[in-house]
Amino acid sequence: MRQSELFTKTRKTAPKDEVAKNAQLLIRAGYIHKEMAGVYSFLPLGLRVLNKINDIVREEMNAVGGQELTMSVLQNKELWEKTGRWSDEVVDNWFKTQLKNGADTSLAFTAEEPITNIMRDYLNSYADLPKLAYQIQWKYRNEERAKSGIMRGREFLMKDMYSFAGSADEHEKVYEKVAEAYVKIFQRLGIGDRTYRTFASGGVFSKYSHEFQCLSPIGEDTIYVHEGKKIAINKEVLLPEVLGDLGVTQEELVEQKAIEVGNIFSLGTRFSDALGLKFKQKDGSEAAPVMGCYGIGTSRLLGALVEVFADEKGIVWPESVAPFSAHLVAISSGNEDVIKEADRLYELLKDSGIDVLYDDRDVRAGEKFADSDLIGIPTRLVVSEKTMSEGGIERVDRQSGSTGFVQDSEVVQQLQK
Amino acid sequence: MRQSELFTKTRKTAPKDEVAKNAQLLIRAGYIHKEMAGVYSFLPLGLRVLNKINDIVREEMNAVGGQELTMSVLQNKELWEKTGRWSDEVVDNWFKTQLKNGADTSLAFTAEEPITNIMRDYLNSYADLPKLAYQIQWKYRNEERAKSGIMRGREFLMKDMYSFAGSADEHEKVYEKVAEAYVKIFQRLGIGDRTYRTFASGGVFSKYSHEFQCLSPIGEDTIYVHEGKKIAINKEVLLPEVLGDLGVTQEELVEQKAIEVGNIFSLGTRFSDALGLKFKQKDGSEAAPVMGCYGIGTSRLLGALVEVFADEKGIVWPESVAPFSAHLVAISSGNEDVIKEADRLYELLKDSGIDVLYDDRDVRAGEKFADSDLIGIPTRLVVSEKTMSEGGIERVDRQSGSTGFVQDSEVVQQLQK
Repeated sequence: MRQSELFTKTRKTAPKDEVAKNAQLLIRAGYIHKEMAGVYSFLPLGLRVLNKINDIVREEMNAVGGQELTMSVLQNKELWEKTGRWSDEVVDNWFKTQLKNGADTSLAFTAEEPITNIMRDYLNSYADLPKLAYQIQWKYRNEERAKSGIMRGREFLMKDMYSFAGSADEHEKVYEKVAEAYVKIFQRLGIGDRTYRTFASGGVFSKYSHEFQCLSPIGEDTIYVHEGKKIAINKEVLLPEVLGDLGVTQEELVEQKAIEVGNIFSLGTRFSDALGLKFKQKDGSEAAPVMGCYGIGTSRLLGALVEVFADEKGIVWPESVAPFSAHLVAISSGNEDVIKEADRLYELLKDSGIDVLYDDRDVRAGEKFADSDLIGIPTRLVVSEKTMSEGGIERVDRQSGSTGFVQDSEVVQQLQK
Repeated sequence: MRQSELFTKTRKTAPKDEVAKNAQLLIRAGYIHKEMAGVYSFLPLGLRVLNKINDIVREEMNAVGGQELTMSVLQNKELWEKTGRWSDEVVDNWFKTQLKNGADTSLAFTAEEPITNIMRDYLNSYADLPKLAYQIQWKYRNEERAKSGIMRGREFLMKDMYSFAGSADEHEKVYEKVAEAYVKIFQRLGIGDRTYRTFASGGVFSKYSHEFQCLSPIGEDTIYVHEGKKIAINKEVLLPEVLGDLGVTQEELVEQKAIEVGNIFSLGTRFSDALGLKFKQKDGSEAAPVMGCYGIGTSRLLGALVEVFADEKGIVWPESVAPFSAHLVAISSGNEDVIKEADRLYELLKDSGIDVLYDDRDVRAGEKFADSDLIGIPTRLVVSEKTMSEGGIERVDRQSGSTGFVQDSEVVQQLQK
């Protein structure tokens, strides 16, 4: 895409009330727009990144047998009353609203109730189990304060998967399979090496839940990392009993700040019991499916990636989610030959199936480079009088800053990988 | 996908309170789930169709230069006060809610206000115009009654595009380009021949708006069709002056019932004026961009396609949006050779890049055929002892019911088209 045609532009400053680095950079670079505290719109560049994150999550959920659906945002009060979660005293971040006839409804903050209710129509027999269903849908949480940019939005996009198993054993197998899929997702997003499966408090039906915590000094959570086992313990459950369960000692652990980028939870039969979801077992008797839930807030994760990778110049995207694979920057100073050569390269890259943002604007070189750094596309390709006289293209790696001259055929080959 | 693994199943009946044919069939076939009146979840089959509709709309919007973004559902009251649309007396179908601090917010029923406000950050000069931006995002309309199934949902997915032009002339060109894109969309969805660009009432800034009306006896609108000119007039504006404007006579028109599947509207400077969106013209003076808006409710359109194409046996999808290209039905009666042959064909189709639903369930032939008719995939491929003895596959066209024996190589070739 030609940058001159993109409707967004970079900005020198973010809104004064925006204190989070992720939102400041994303607003300045034209990825998001702040509608109000904790509520953001995704502009073309931001939507591209969000879609790429969603696609990675979707692929890995499909790979473990997840079936995608999209549930409504508006919620049926009756279902939430059955599980005791309608009351504002139980759930303190509901958004509620009313239908014209005065009936109460609300905006989904999660979806255990509706998915369990849907499954009542379809899960009848042990032969129907296990089943995994997920959605990537907007969620609404009426946070008291919303100061972490898109990392704790009041409106945010979340992949929420729910599993239904015929026994505790079957549930454990599904749970572990999804946990492995989560590891793959964070690897593909470039944060695998700093993201730890973290033991956290469970509930009535399981001793532990698991969070996926990504190390970052701005993280709101404190975790204790065991590097050898590649696991961590949330501060909330740092107890002798837990250390014993995991076979680790306090001395082996390192305290770290971290951002929660995913969580998985065994629900037991809390929701299937409350909502009357039952299936026939092999012996003809009835039982309630054992459930699990698995969340990743994909729009929040986008913010976490900015926090983790950004440097003093701006955003630095991992290749897997960058809005474009390459940022082609023409430094022409009005020289028609340079413009012609950059145009040629732009067409070549597009024809080779490479997503490229082409800075064809008539502005100073310094402004172009500053914008390119701010936007954070992994590979920058510079065409100028100088590069043409040296018979190549200057390739700049956004993350390391390393530069080198390359031929167009090399560029195409590298970026097609 | 193997049908035995799909978590949905067909049902004999729809909920008793569901009176619309589109929702009845979609619920019975497992495409959607009714959460409450006017609110539906999209199950795996339904989401597949919805995504295909969205992709067609997206391609045509991109083709005319539309840039996709996703705006928030939660709305900033201040913007809507500036245009005079916050009051429930002006907009009678708002869903309103409150933040924890007591501040009012609402759920988007359209997005002129936020998109105009966003553009204030980016549109500064005549050189920035024209620009087109669109989203495919959930909309919320607190309808008094919701009796048309997903054709008039309280929560529905809508593609809404907005254009910003530097002059009335520039606006007209953009408007016509989008109108042509709409014609292409309805052609690709298989309803081109029965969908008419229909003159409807305009507003302060333009004499007419245009609706795209699809003929159907269950349509809520009455239109007057001029077949020769391939246009129509909404009953609301069937006046001598309008007939004169269009150069048609009352006698040439045929009264029809129709479903509104899209609409386009010239907004003039109503929103840019109210929200202070200005740009610098060539001569240095300031002006407000001339705006247009262009809507297609894609989830409502899904319901319209069901209404238009369904027959007494169930849903009939146009090829372009069917959840799968082919429905492979194995009639084995326990014969292992038939299962083996159907499995082979399933793998062949998948390996050839064809999306196929494979009915590998152990149920009676009659039930399989009835389910296949209900689900409505355009091409059915039957493998049975009989077809094997005749050395082929039985191919059944869902719409015409025509059948014939074909070889697997032919099937692959036909479906890959």
